[in-house]
Amino acid sequence: MSFFDKLGCRITSSNSLLCVGLDPDVAKLPAGVGLVEFNRAIVAATKDFACAYKLNFAFYEEAGVAGWGLLAETRRCIPADIPVIADAKRADIGNTSRAYARAIFEELKFDAVTVNPYLGYDGVAPFLEFRDRGVYILCRTSNPGAADFQTLPVDLGGRVAPLYEVVAEKASQWNEHSNVGLVLGATGAAELGLIRRKFPNLPFLVPGVGAQGGDLTLVVRDGQGSCPGGLIINVSRQVIFASPSSDFAEAAAQAAQALRDEINQYRQ
Amino acid sequence: MSFFDKLGCRITSSNSLLCVGLDPDVAKLPAGVGLVEFNRAIVAATKDFACAYKLNFAFYEEAGVAGWGLLAETRRCIPADIPVIADAKRADIGNTSRAYARAIFEELKFDAVTVNPYLGYDGVAPFLEFRDRGVYILCRTSNPGAADFQTLPVDLGGRVAPLYEVVAEKASQWNEHSNVGLVLGATGAAELGLIRRKFPNLPFLVPGVGAQGGDLTLVVRDGQGSCPGGLIINVSRQVIFASPSSDFAEAAAQAAQALRDEINQYRQ
Repeated sequence: MSFFDKLGCRITSSNSLLCVGLDPDVAKLPAGVGLVEFNRAIVAATKDFACAYKLNFAFYEEAGVAGWGLLAETRRCIPADIPVIADAKRADIGNTSRAYARAIFEELKFDAVTVNPYLGYDGVAPFLEFRDRGVYILCRTSNPGAADFQTLPVDLGGRVAPLYEVVAEKASQWNEHSNVGLVLGATGAAELGLIRRKFPNLPFLVPGVGAQGGDLTLVVRDGQGSCPGGLIINVSRQVIFASPSSDFAEAAAQAAQALRDEINQYRQ
Repeated sequence: MSFFDKLGCRITSSNSLLCVGLDPDVAKLPAGVGLVEFNRAIVAATKDFACAYKLNFAFYEEAGVAGWGLLAETRRCIPADIPVIADAKRADIGNTSRAYARAIFEELKFDAVTVNPYLGYDGVAPFLEFRDRGVYILCRTSNPGAADFQTLPVDLGGRVAPLYEVVAEKASQWNEHSNVGLVLGATGAAELGLIRRKFPNLPFLVPGVGAQGGDLTLVVRDGQGSCPGGLIINVSRQVIFASPSSDFAEAAAQAAQALRDEINQYRQ
């Protein structure tokens, strides 16, 4: 079964488009709670409300040599029927991207990955060769710096399109095995809607609601596609750090449930 | 002392522009030789001919959970006066890039890093805050996929420039603390020359000679700048896998010495 089919099934069974971001910034962990212990409690508390989990590698690598062990342990504490995304934003030249793809898909056994498009096709292709995994290509990210390059007008000879749109076009061409998706930040709702209209069959992973301020209503209204796993919305801090105290897991469950229900309300 | 000043001193003392890429593809290691053992022998054999070493994280992460331990061990076996570059090609939104920067500079203690520009300024800024470290921004990479996005013409209102040139312009603006360099592939010698003429004071890290086929003569002729550490040329496979047998270290030493000497001949 393809990643996006698996994700589609999970969206149905959980009745949720919420992806919970397990980004355990060590400075914010409740006193006396270890990183994996924290993640395990968050997963146990939120799993009924999440269609997927996303682990941003930076918050694990920050632990140094121990980091990848924490990644692997966290990945293992997520139930097998829930897709898990490696938010690693990797890419290199071809033979090097192959090593990254093996690390993430074979060693750590993630179901999907985020990749950076700047190096072009051969930087992405080794990930695409894993046909049962998902490859989310950064398109228009949620941060202020997205305006530095992603929204620049590219002259394509006869027409002009912003760079993120050119990235989406290439991603669509690279989608031979139906395993390509796009990362589109909620903070760029207009861009997200534009890309959705042009590419109804590309799945979206949307970060940037919650702490980053994206508009959830617009994301749900304009982001849904006509493909399995067509839209998932990632929220990290607003869920996992809903409370700084020992009730963090219950608070995360409440926040996740409230977000799932809010999203479902807009889906109508 | 800034990274590029340190690199400049090392270039002088080693009389070398050669950066040796420690990219120990496990499929190519000599029989019975472990990854760190291999790296240690390569460093001991090549250190007199190298101005710097560069470790591509992919070939360590491919080992899974053990990978970052191998990175740290390898980094420690390089003499303190030789700059070591983390070829990690990281970038994420601001607060997340901060975690990556801490991991690479504080935990693993690398002297410099490669970063991907696609996320824009706030993805790069947390690395730049480490003023004594070097930040090499991917500009025009050495792989075929570079043509997918990096060379596209961007309409800047009144003039048109390829995306990689826009990246170089931004990198130059971000160079407040003289800690920014560019990655320019040797396979794009024309682009490298163009960027050098526009930015005489940005240091270049140039991969893509050797196995990838870039022209060393052109790189040396057109790539040298007027700043400390202005040009270093990375070679990986051609040096570290010069021989597949037990004489790999001696063969690497010979290959490194020959490359250093060839580069120096073109510097005249």
